[in-house]
Amino acid sequence: MRSDGKIPVDGLLTRADHVLTCDASFRVFSPGAVAFHRGTIVAVGPCSELEERYAAKETWSLQGHLLLPGLVNTHVHAAMSLFRGVGDDLPLHHWLHERIFPAESRFVRPQFVHLGTLLSCVEMVLGGTTTFCDGYFFEESAADAAERIGMRAVLGQGVLNFPTPDVPDPARIADRVAAFLESFSRRPSRLTPSLFCHAPYSCTPETLQWAKDLCRDHGLLFQIHVSETAWEVQEIQSRYGRSPVRLLKDLGILDKRTLCAHAVWVDEEEIQILAQTRAGVSHSLESNLKLASGIAPLPAMIGAGIPIGLGTDGCASNNDLDLFSEMSLAAKIHKAAFDDPTVCSARQVLLMATQGGARALGLGGIIGSLEVGKRADLVAVDMDQAHLTPLYDPVSHLVYAARSSDVRHVWVDGVPIVRDGTVQNLDVSQVLGEARTLARKIRTALFQP
Amino acid sequence: MRSDGKIPVDGLLTRADHVLTCDASFRVFSPGAVAFHRGTIVAVGPCSELEERYAAKETWSLQGHLLLPGLVNTHVHAAMSLFRGVGDDLPLHHWLHERIFPAESRFVRPQFVHLGTLLSCVEMVLGGTTTFCDGYFFEESAADAAERIGMRAVLGQGVLNFPTPDVPDPARIADRVAAFLESFSRRPSRLTPSLFCHAPYSCTPETLQWAKDLCRDHGLLFQIHVSETAWEVQEIQSRYGRSPVRLLKDLGILDKRTLCAHAVWVDEEEIQILAQTRAGVSHSLESNLKLASGIAPLPAMIGAGIPIGLGTDGCASNNDLDLFSEMSLAAKIHKAAFDDPTVCSARQVLLMATQGGARALGLGGIIGSLEVGKRADLVAVDMDQAHLTPLYDPVSHLVYAARSSDVRHVWVDGVPIVRDGTVQNLDVSQVLGEARTLARKIRTALFQP
Ligand SMILES: [Zn+2]
Ligand SMILES: [Zn+2]
Repeated sequence: MRSDGKIPVDGLLTRADHVLTCDASFRVFSPGAVAFHRGTIVAVGPCSELEERYAAKETWSLQGHLLLPGLVNTHVHAAMSLFRGVGDDLPLHHWLHERIFPAESRFVRPQFVHLGTLLSCVEMVLGGTTTFCDGYFFEESAADAAERIGMRAVLGQGVLNFPTPDVPDPARIADRVAAFLESFSRRPSRLTPSLFCHAPYSCTPETLQWAKDLCRDHGLLFQIHVSETAWEVQEIQSRYGRSPVRLLKDLGILDKRTLCAHAVWVDEEEIQILAQTRAGVSHSLESNLKLASGIAPLPAMIGAGIPIGLGTDGCASNNDLDLFSEMSLAAKIHKAAFDDPTVCSARQVLLMATQGGARALGLGGIIGSLEVGKRADLVAVDMDQAHLTPLYDPVSHLVYAARSSDVRHVWVDGVPIVRDGTVQNLDVSQVLGEARTLARKIRTALFQP
Repeated sequence: MRSDGKIPVDGLLTRADHVLTCDASFRVFSPGAVAFHRGTIVAVGPCSELEERYAAKETWSLQGHLLLPGLVNTHVHAAMSLFRGVGDDLPLHHWLHERIFPAESRFVRPQFVHLGTLLSCVEMVLGGTTTFCDGYFFEESAADAAERIGMRAVLGQGVLNFPTPDVPDPARIADRVAAFLESFSRRPSRLTPSLFCHAPYSCTPETLQWAKDLCRDHGLLFQIHVSETAWEVQEIQSRYGRSPVRLLKDLGILDKRTLCAHAVWVDEEEIQILAQTRAGVSHSLESNLKLASGIAPLPAMIGAGIPIGLGTDGCASNNDLDLFSEMSLAAKIHKAAFDDPTVCSARQVLLMATQGGARALGLGGIIGSLEVGKRADLVAVDMDQAHLTPLYDPVSHLVYAARSSDVRHVWVDGVPIVRDGTVQNLDVSQVLGEARTLARKIRTALFQP
């Protein structure tokens, strides 16, 4: 304590019009403040109280802003931003086999993954995302990018029983995974390794069980695309005589450290299986719409108590990494799809983008809400704008009217990685320039072969 | 012609990376330029050609930008921005009867309509909308607001067989409408009056025919909400023994100067009726989703050749006036809803937001595309951003990845009404302040009665 009786802390964010804690009782302080020290939140509450109690190295005065937990993107293939818009409005088979697969096999290298992930990290942090859960190849390079920009990330090394850019011979997958996991011994704790088994149709049951066992042994998140399309459900049914979710359950894959991306085609019983096993779900709505995969039964999944986060999926199928548009859409579409304007309320959807996403990733104890003891991952949104005026309800505005471009400041572990809408400690224009240079080669290869 | 052989013009917009004309053959100039004089486009083409030919009073150099026609919002109740977020996630009846109707009857006055429309105009122009088609009460005040900010607008005076804020006695509607139309004798030509019959269930057949006849006599657009909800279709069926679209057809209401807002619940035959009568449709997707009205059969309506524009509807049911998010959503949702990733392509959707909207409003001859002789309504979008990098296809990016916040400059009739993201000739912070002051009274009246 200092001579003036105040407690020294690293940061004090105060005078925010509203602090949305997104905690279990959904406390809101209007106006409110948050204090943090050494990357950890030490207080959340009324401004006057915190200003009296703490002396901060740096104080942010956030009049006109809304303060909330950093957003959590639970499903992304970050490096694919380099394929943003390379193929739209195409039949799925044509899109995959004429555009995505040829581009991946020719261009995906460590430098590609680093550059593409860095580009995605810029987009994500500018839009208020502080944590992302990735799945791709050469994931050490994705980790390098997340480390450089200062984001929190779960990095899922891709596992398939097919040749991939980083494992041309699928029989060598165990070596690849061992080297990948080993590389994390030198990473900051906000970066966590994970395994991403691509899908039940592209991995054998043996591979799925091997990867899940490895995740269990190392305490890691196991990720998988599940029941994304009607085709997949039919395919798995014909191969194994059961649906994808039932197959995973029977293989012992589903537990609270498993994240199922998509879960579009799941019936009532499968929703109960997900709930009972405590597996998490990543709801990747825009991707599911754009690829005509279908509309997941989100209200029923929420009702069953499944930990659900929002995911953007990769830029090849979305085509952005914008959790504000995902929130807005998730709150609206299920009302029409399920004929009930009361489902998927703004509050429920905001909780999915924060606390729910954190829980689905197994990070519910350290992020997802503004509570003492959690990491200081925060976002300040500038509400002083025409499209957010007047304001009757801050939660409604965040979900139904705010945009990622309204994000002004972003902190991860108490470090401001975006100030006044500008990414810190990174030459963004250089990243964009390098992306454009590489894209010229991709364009030539794909369209003028 | 000047001594240097160049033709003097008011404005030259040049060096745009891509000029999307949105004309009948969808010409794109990369890079490209547009010249205008006295509010009219005099040339569209390659930069070098136009720079050689024209000497402009003001030249904009638009490297890194995309130039396109101003967007057209075909369905809005602009003044309702003052009720933005006043009630969400509620059953429709509760929302209407406990929130919207009480708020309207107590607060809607000429000053309210002026302030709310001005607020909406700020949001719309900052997001690249140059033309809006409105429907509300005290529409002279809406016209005042559009005139002040410099937008193009079709202003629909509300017509109902119920008491309204500006016509407490429905028997006096003819006087009200006569005064409204008279007031347009003094307006600039970019502001056009219109009549907005609220819906087939809130107007009698006699009122509908009277209003349509008046529109015919004056050459005005007739607007009406049609088949927005399943309830409406049932109600009209039970009253008149036919569906809303068939009722309007039988009453002689449908022709190319009639705009049907919503058209969610229309069958194949009704789609053919709309196409044959050449009536226009405003597709108001976000509103239809949020109010759980349903999902309109857009691919079939496009296929039938109906002139279709996009509409945001009012902020009480959306909760913004963002045509970029409407474009993104329209291009995605129908793919999933109709199980086909090739429907509602980026190009089709961009055309709806420009040329299609213009045609639906009966303004196809003067706006909606960048062509010689049309009014100089243009938008420059800044593409030099992480979420728009790299760029393989400018149309894909505009629809699937760009945001209204990427709009940098906006011209209407050749006048720059937004420069560098800033509204010209208006104190925006004063408008926001006045909106907040009024909102405090609305909040007190609604929530602490
Ligand atoms: Zn995915
Ligand atoms: Zn409407």
